[in-house]
Amino acid sequence: MEFTIGQIAGMLGGEVKGDPSAKINMLAKIQDAKPGQIAFLSNPKYEQFIYSTQASVVIVKKDFVPKKEITPSLILVEDPYLSFTALLEQYHKMINFQKSGIEQPSFIGESSVTGENIYRGAFSYIGANAKIGNNVKIYPHVFIGDNVTIDDNTILHSGVKLYSGTKVGKNCVIHSGTVIGSDGFGFAPQADGSYKSIPQLGNVIIEDNVAIGGNTVIDCATMFGDSTIIRQGVKLDNLIQIAHNVEIGKNTVIAAQSGVSGSTKVGESCIIGGQVGIAGHLVIANRTGIGAQSGISKANVEGQQLFGSPAFELSKWLRSYTVFRKLPDVLDRLGDLEKKVKKINESTSAPSN
Amino acid sequence: MEFTIGQIAGMLGGEVKGDPSAKINMLAKIQDAKPGQIAFLSNPKYEQFIYSTQASVVIVKKDFVPKKEITPSLILVEDPYLSFTALLEQYHKMINFQKSGIEQPSFIGESSVTGENIYRGAFSYIGANAKIGNNVKIYPHVFIGDNVTIDDNTILHSGVKLYSGTKVGKNCVIHSGTVIGSDGFGFAPQADGSYKSIPQLGNVIIEDNVAIGGNTVIDCATMFGDSTIIRQGVKLDNLIQIAHNVEIGKNTVIAAQSGVSGSTKVGESCIIGGQVGIAGHLVIANRTGIGAQSGISKANVEGQQLFGSPAFELSKWLRSYTVFRKLPDVLDRLGDLEKKVKKINESTSAPSN
Amino acid sequence: MEFTIGQIAGMLGGEVKGDPSAKINMLAKIQDAKPGQIAFLSNPKYEQFIYSTQASVVIVKKDFVPKKEITPSLILVEDPYLSFTALLEQYHKMINFQKSGIEQPSFIGESSVTGENIYRGAFSYIGANAKIGNNVKIYPHVFIGDNVTIDDNTILHSGVKLYSGTKVGKNCVIHSGTVIGSDGFGFAPQADGSYKSIPQLGNVIIEDNVAIGGNTVIDCATMFGDSTIIRQGVKLDNLIQIAHNVEIGKNTVIAAQSGVSGSTKVGESCIIGGQVGIAGHLVIANRTGIGAQSGISKANVEGQQLFGSPAFELSKWLRSYTVFRKLPDVLDRLGDLEKKVKKINESTSAPSN
Repeated sequence: MEFTIGQIAGMLGGEVKGDPSAKINMLAKIQDAKPGQIAFLSNPKYEQFIYSTQASVVIVKKDFVPKKEITPSLILVEDPYLSFTALLEQYHKMINFQKSGIEQPSFIGESSVTGENIYRGAFSYIGANAKIGNNVKIYPHVFIGDNVTIDDNTILHSGVKLYSGTKVGKNCVIHSGTVIGSDGFGFAPQADGSYKSIPQLGNVIIEDNVAIGGNTVIDCATMFGDSTIIRQGVKLDNLIQIAHNVEIGKNTVIAAQSGVSGSTKVGESCIIGGQVGIAGHLVIANRTGIGAQSGISKANVEGQQLFGSPAFELSKWLRSYTVFRKLPDVLDRLGDLEKKVKKINESTSAPSN
Repeated sequence: MEFTIGQIAGMLGGEVKGDPSAKINMLAKIQDAKPGQIAFLSNPKYEQFIYSTQASVVIVKKDFVPKKEITPSLILVEDPYLSFTALLEQYHKMINFQKSGIEQPSFIGESSVTGENIYRGAFSYIGANAKIGNNVKIYPHVFIGDNVTIDDNTILHSGVKLYSGTKVGKNCVIHSGTVIGSDGFGFAPQADGSYKSIPQLGNVIIEDNVAIGGNTVIDCATMFGDSTIIRQGVKLDNLIQIAHNVEIGKNTVIAAQSGVSGSTKVGESCIIGGQVGIAGHLVIANRTGIGAQSGISKANVEGQQLFGSPAFELSKWLRSYTVFRKLPDVLDRLGDLEKKVKKINESTSAPSN
Repeated sequence: MEFTIGQIAGMLGGEVKGDPSAKINMLAKIQDAKPGQIAFLSNPKYEQFIYSTQASVVIVKKDFVPKKEITPSLILVEDPYLSFTALLEQYHKMINFQKSGIEQPSFIGESSVTGENIYRGAFSYIGANAKIGNNVKIYPHVFIGDNVTIDDNTILHSGVKLYSGTKVGKNCVIHSGTVIGSDGFGFAPQADGSYKSIPQLGNVIIEDNVAIGGNTVIDCATMFGDSTIIRQGVKLDNLIQIAHNVEIGKNTVIAAQSGVSGSTKVGESCIIGGQVGIAGHLVIANRTGIGAQSGISKANVEGQQLFGSPAFELSKWLRSYTVFRKLPDVLDRLGDLEKKVKKINESTSAPSN
């Protein structure tokens, strides 16, 4: 992964000042960059660093005029921050998709088919009748159960576990240790106080462009033909719990350690903080915002901001919380008033004796 | 796994109306069923579906009389819901226990013994001196440390980790990514501000009929000969933390992301919600109910319902919470009263001037 | 692992009463000990057990004089508890470090180097260009990405996942299922309501003497050259979330299921309870104490004790909480006062009619 400055300027549609044949192998921040690296200057308060940086080349604004002598070459573009971000993404994609081929030992069951340019790391396991698309990257210790399907360009990091029947869409990234398709938590109480497991026979469907963090767990649906569904564009952080038969709506984002209980349907474009708990069998409206550590126990209206445990509207919650902090003072004032009123009553009743 | 309608009716002790030799290979809901599948009709509000279902056979009540013509065969039983549930269980058991044999490569250490009809998935690891019972299913990437014992009919899903010395009973199911026997969190503060690890030398005992979800962690006991104990019939959900020397009583159920701190003893038949935290060195009484996100900081009495953080009795907590929601109003009323009392005092004291 | 009583007395600098050539193979509590085991007596209230224990030898205080006949040999030392603890540690170290050699199949990539006396369990994976120090123990199913470095005497339990570029110091212990270096949770909102992943290109640095529990997740830093840093001596429990670009200060201890959001810097020697959430971009001062289930939403001063969600000073929080529990009573008293004041106003205004 080495490019010339000229090649990079070509990708960015920028103009080179300096030697276009010099080679670049890494991106860096302007204050940390070393020779052979490329940096960018966007915010004027970082301009000082362009006079001392060791970067071989710096991406700058088209109209940038150095106030002193500088050593790096320049690439002149419309928007250096966007250009640098585009390079970062390109680099990230190259890093993520650079692995390919089959490391040994790895395991693949009967009748499974795999697409082109896939990576199957050592000790990865693919069961029977699985369908794996093109350009899928399966890191070591991934478990893919029977009848799983995975669409193109999806990355499963080391140790991801997909139970039988799971379906994963295109362009998904699932991080290490995440478990998808485990049994829902369903138990029928028996007369003797014990519980009988309710068979969990559904599956999990992950649509396209979903990102899931590490050590998250998504349970399968209970019944045949039913699915726990993570809709397209959803982003789930680490250590999240998604129970059986849940649906998470398109483009909803959930921060780490939150949990959604069984059969709840979370709307589209919600933003849910960390360590939030959502009770079962609820419908959470589209565009709901939920503050960290809140507990949601009932349905709500679109666009609402919720907070607290159990949660209600953020603005109202904040006013209650403000008084909560002053409660000792409130109690003092109440006691004080009681004394005053007692005194008034004594003095006003005194004459009547 | 294909049965005739006659075979299924035989299992259920039901009577067939239609062709008993027709074949069934899957269970489904009446509204979704396809040819070759079996469904049931219990709730009268679903009766409409029996006239349009594609199911090959539907389990119905003994006295069911169709109001129109129907295409599926029927199996007539006392209680269609119970019969269908029995089939689901049977099917689930067959699915879960269908794997057997040893996939390669897999690893087994010296002096370990395994029972009959077990499954050892590829990349599963069994250390030395382990004892594995009959019909145990060990999925790929399971780690079983030295001196572990696992009794009959237990299923360890992909990636379960059992540290040395763990004991697991009969008929248990442990889901992917769960870790059992890791070091308890014990550290002795030193004079220089650092901490020294306290050696963790006990083990974990899981009794019979326990179900444990995915990515849960159960730490070993601290001392030799001591055990962290999960009693028979306990059901633990995903992402739960059970610290060193904890005991969870018989038939207690704990929902996802809850945690129990070191040396606490939770009673029998408790029902504990999600994201609950229980402090260390407590005794939680039998049949305690704990609401989601509660924090338990002291012992309690049998059958109590607890809520809040720190928790107290649910009914009392609800009354406090109701007032919490009205606190801004309470503050206004208090301010109003203060003004009134001031006015009274001014007016009553005015004459005395 | 068998020692004579004489050898053990030698290690502890103690004096033997009894047969120094008798053999010991295990440590135990005095009330549970069996023949061949060593126990200790420190607290006088356990003295009764020394007259009935089956232990072969008991470590006692130098000046201990039995009141009755005893069967075990004795080792006389200054402080029996400390001596026993030293033996426990020695034993624990031996247990932890006894594995060595390379089990097959295991995987190691190009240009990776490993030190002396290391253990590489079956199905462990080491990528390319990794550097593994002396005496490192890599259990089965561990994943070590490309360019990872691990310093001497570090133990990675089964199923630990270290993403590319992670650096781990000396004498660390990381428990099963823990994920280090996964992508930070960073997404840029797009005009159409979807999110674009922000490439995560930094790494994680774990310094020396760090202990990390099971199924914890530590995300990498966002930018090249940046690191999420766990400073020396930090102890993290199970199921903890550490987001991108976080720094946890030296000797800080965090209990299970807590989470620290992106770019927050936690000070040195903090003690943080379980299920705590800390918001992003904060600086938590040195020696801060945070109670279980608290939510930290702003910076604080050194040595503060915080509680609640959102948290404030523990002592103040406790006073507010005490009133919270009495709120129904407060409401009654307020209603009562309102009636009294109304009555006063009616009676005092009556005459003016």
